Amino acid sequence: MALEEGQNGGAEKVAVEVSFKSFKPQLFVEAPKANDAVQFYKTAFGAVETCRTTQPKRKADQELPHIVSAQLQLAGSTFLVSDLSDDSASTKAGGTVFAMCLETEDVEAAVTKAVAAGAVAEGGVVDGEGACCCAERVTTVKDPYGFVWQFCSPADKCGANVEA
Amino acid sequence: MALEEGQNGGAEKVAVEVSFKSFKPQLFVEAPKANDAVQFYKTAFGAVETCRTTQPKRKADQELPHIVSAQLQLAGSTFLVSDLSDDSASTKAGGTVFAMCLETEDVEAAVTKAVAAGAVAEGGVVDGEGACCCAERVTTVKDPYGFVWQFCSPADKCGANVEA
Repeated sequence: MALEEGQNGGAEKVAVEVSFKSFKPQLFVEAPKANDAVQFYKTAFGAVETCRTTQPKRKADQELPHIVSAQLQLAGSTFLVSDLSDDSASTKAGGTVFAMCLETEDVEAAVTKAVAAGAVAEGGVVDGEGACCCAERVTTVKDPYGFVWQFCSPADKCGANVEA
Repeated sequence: MALEEGQNGGAEKVAVEVSFKSFKPQLFVEAPKANDAVQFYKTAFGAVETCRTTQPKRKADQELPHIVSAQLQLAGSTFLVSDLSDDSASTKAGGTVFAMCLETEDVEAAVTKAVAAGAVAEGGVVDGEGACCCAERVTTVKDPYGFVWQFCSPADKCGANVEA
């Protein structure tokens, strides 16, 4: 049986070269429970935290700083856990929210290639502010299946402390 | 500032040793679009497919076999793409559905440890039927933050063809 060409089949000729350095799923939890969630992943699965980016508490009644992202190692892979901020609520899907972070040296080229293949860019390139743990520049696309991908500049500062 | 003990702090003494061989996010897309999605991830991100588990088409009007899971390599990590079947609709959260697959030799011990830490087991251990690409046994827990984790026996048959 011939494989279906697919809605994106015609876009394969886009001559943009992009190299990704890492792939990190990012789990968003209702603030301020990211700290609890990190503790759970350590306890339940033996995950090891290798990086944490926080903002000072933004409301007087918050006991914990807002976790922009905490980076965990598990079974040779990396994932992130973040407090869901008010301005990330637009990505909320039911009870769970998540995104995939792809580190690359060329964020713009990654967007160009993804959009040519059928993704939709969501805003421009912005200051990372820790979204993908230490990435300086971040931009977001939504793929044709509703999943959110964040292209981030390499998080070299974090990486320096992470053992392979 | 003292770190919050967290709702699971008391469970850290559970003496169950579990080792995970791999961590694979799994993206569920509306059937039969998994094939298109795989093509998109290849075109947009340069992902490489290393394994595909299918079921014969189950309805006369389906042109494509149902993709139980297709395994993709991207930036040194692995993820899965699956057609969303009717019986997995219970995990549906808005427009996107996903789970994390954790491969382990001891599925039962993984459940025990996760439940002790605060997760909720969802059914018993069942035949994998390709859910995590070639895993023979699979069971599912939901963590306290709503995310679904599938503990799977190692997918050795797939792994044999995957280069590190």
